[in-house]
Amino acid sequence: MTTQTSVALCTDHYELTMLSAALRDGSADRRCVFEVFARRLPTGRRYGVVAGTARIIDAVADFRFPADDLAFLRENGVVNDETAQWLADYRFSGDIDGYAEGELFFPGSPILTVSGTFAECVVLETFILSVLNHDCAIAAGAARMVTAARGRRLIEMGSRRTHEEAAVAAARSAYLAGFSSTSNLAAGRRYGIPTAGTAAHAFTLLHDDEPAAFAAQVAVLGKGTTLLVDTYDISAGIRHAVEVAGPALGAIRIDSGDLSVLAGQSRELLDSLGATETKIIVSGDLDEYAIAALAAEPVDAYGAGTAVVVGSGAPTAGLVYKLVEVAGRPVVKRSENKATVGGRKTAVRRHKPTGTAVEEVIGAGCVPEAKPGDRALQIPMVRGGAVVEGLPTLADARALLRQNLISIPWEGLKLSAGDPAVPVTTIAGEC
Amino acid sequence: MTTQTSVALCTDHYELTMLSAALRDGSADRRCVFEVFARRLPTGRRYGVVAGTARIIDAVADFRFPADDLAFLRENGVVNDETAQWLADYRFSGDIDGYAEGELFFPGSPILTVSGTFAECVVLETFILSVLNHDCAIAAGAARMVTAARGRRLIEMGSRRTHEEAAVAAARSAYLAGFSSTSNLAAGRRYGIPTAGTAAHAFTLLHDDEPAAFAAQVAVLGKGTTLLVDTYDISAGIRHAVEVAGPALGAIRIDSGDLSVLAGQSRELLDSLGATETKIIVSGDLDEYAIAALAAEPVDAYGAGTAVVVGSGAPTAGLVYKLVEVAGRPVVKRSENKATVGGRKTAVRRHKPTGTAVEEVIGAGCVPEAKPGDRALQIPMVRGGAVVEGLPTLADARALLRQNLISIPWEGLKLSAGDPAVPVTTIAGEC
Repeated sequence: MTTQTSVALCTDHYELTMLSAALRDGSADRRCVFEVFARRLPTGRRYGVVAGTARIIDAVADFRFPADDLAFLRENGVVNDETAQWLADYRFSGDIDGYAEGELFFPGSPILTVSGTFAECVVLETFILSVLNHDCAIAAGAARMVTAARGRRLIEMGSRRTHEEAAVAAARSAYLAGFSSTSNLAAGRRYGIPTAGTAAHAFTLLHDDEPAAFAAQVAVLGKGTTLLVDTYDISAGIRHAVEVAGPALGAIRIDSGDLSVLAGQSRELLDSLGATETKIIVSGDLDEYAIAALAAEPVDAYGAGTAVVVGSGAPTAGLVYKLVEVAGRPVVKRSENKATVGGRKTAVRRHKPTGTAVEEVIGAGCVPEAKPGDRALQIPMVRGGAVVEGLPTLADARALLRQNLISIPWEGLKLSAGDPAVPVTTIAGEC
Repeated sequence: MTTQTSVALCTDHYELTMLSAALRDGSADRRCVFEVFARRLPTGRRYGVVAGTARIIDAVADFRFPADDLAFLRENGVVNDETAQWLADYRFSGDIDGYAEGELFFPGSPILTVSGTFAECVVLETFILSVLNHDCAIAAGAARMVTAARGRRLIEMGSRRTHEEAAVAAARSAYLAGFSSTSNLAAGRRYGIPTAGTAAHAFTLLHDDEPAAFAAQVAVLGKGTTLLVDTYDISAGIRHAVEVAGPALGAIRIDSGDLSVLAGQSRELLDSLGATETKIIVSGDLDEYAIAALAAEPVDAYGAGTAVVVGSGAPTAGLVYKLVEVAGRPVVKRSENKATVGGRKTAVRRHKPTGTAVEEVIGAGCVPEAKPGDRALQIPMVRGGAVVEGLPTLADARALLRQNLISIPWEGLKLSAGDPAVPVTTIAGEC
């Protein structure tokens, strides 16, 4: 069983009706610029994290409408013959620029810019937004957990709480945000992310008693494995674990109960049994606040699941894909409350000599004047339909985010609600 | 570009390490029963909705571990040779029973029961939970919107706010819950769901003026189309729409502003222009509360997006997959606060002679005594690895949910927080 769908069809009906109408009246060929940005950050958040761009770039290069999809579209009257023929020949031939994965973003940041004909850009809209709205949401929540963990290891284990394919992308975003590993094997295979996992309560329940289960696990995974000790009584579980594996036991995991109390008690018991090097991993509905609350306890690693894959309260990033320029002319929808400005944007982040970010400056239809300490935020990703060589890797994205979270004012790392960590200034027309 | 992954690899690492250990010590062949249930409903919810089961049943029949996945697992030390060989031969040969799609569920309801050897059941855990936790969450939120819409049409248009594949499943769940159509073309193709969509603001901005955009759309889609009238000034937009399409215009869509005021003003204006049959569709961050607040306004249909695909505040259903029986013996994890009972469950819903549901009775390790008005909630879905013929269709699921929402006490339909609409009684051991 494989899921086999063209990503081209994972799109909104109206993208193709707009295409049909634009092909008919000739406006399809007008040169356009579309931009992806967020009007605001999710409630309480101080920064967004760019993630998913690499998934988009990979897909755009091969974005095709297979014959069977086109037959479906014709039979159901979604497109006419002219449009079907155009889609059959579809190759994106435009340009894409954007913020690198791992870059922070704020309200108005132009995180992806797609330029080309109206026709070739409009059919990418839904897919681009799906990827970015999901992946950025997960990365932002995960980054807060990484901050809260203060250097301790985080294992992503939320696959079962979200759609089976979303789980793979979520594992990627969490790793990008600084998690050490994931439970998701497809993410391991697809993205080279380290995977981790040993056993669930079911494995202990399957056996006649807990020592038998532990012995079975150690026989296959070795003494360095992690034994789950809270199926019955935790103290007895820890004693059984050390009896079976000896003091060289790699780790225990506790998945229930008051973790702040249990961590300390477990550490004492492990030490008293001579298992002074055995690590303690805790899991069970951990989010950034629960992780922060465990900072003073003798915990070595956290397993986080549900909160990661649902963006810890903000499951979608609120990103939009807006037409900002047609044939070199800025365009904008009438808007009472939305501070939306037409024209192609150029973004730089300004820094103090110490390296602290102080402002993001966005020129709308102009390029902000260069100042010392500026960093340009957009990089070329696709040129004439071809992927630019040497784009940042997933490892680069991890490093960039880590660096970014050092460079923002320290208030930006607080888990409490507050203003965007870096203020944004938009300059329209003349920079 | 196709996404091509075996769903078998969309799983947690620990499922396969447990498998390895169980194969080594012989416990892999023990007959087991696993059950899927929710310990509680999301905060404020009065019922859950079963959705996704058909996706699981389809996948389980073809659940295989392709050679390239196995090579990955061996190379990365996830499994040993013995386990890899076992996975290469994997065919689920057990039984699956469960609540039909469209059935309501409450805390403890055994919505899916998987029985077979430990080994064949454990490798399905992550996939089954991913599908149900996602699809049930979407269906439950969508069902509340359908209630709030009081018979008016609902169009699902949230694809861009969630992962590209989750979007397809979300469209299916929303349709199951009573939505009329979706914007998602892949859902149209894969599940036969009606798709809908006409144009975005970008299409108007692309053109030299609004009448030109409307004319281009009407030329291709006909006068029965829906024109988006809020790109610039809404009153002018409506006048342009009727000028271009005439009074036979199908519908207008308003996607911004104070919809409760705009709907009435737009209705008056349309009527004054002779477009008395032209429908009004509203969209823009609608959830069940916003929809309910528009009940008195002259709105013909709602477009709902973000709120649908994120489960309207509850993006995951909190379902777990627990081992409840080993070799005929009930098993249960130690639990202080969780009212978890071991043993295979049998569930019936009791009704008054009027048809109102009054109680869900769950026998743990026993079958509740039959009473007049009882309805058995579990149906056989897989027998000996083969899918049972004649399982309910998506249309059946829609009808079942509609019937279910009529049968629960009326308080159950309130949007406010409250107790589960139907109380659950669990009887352990002897019914």
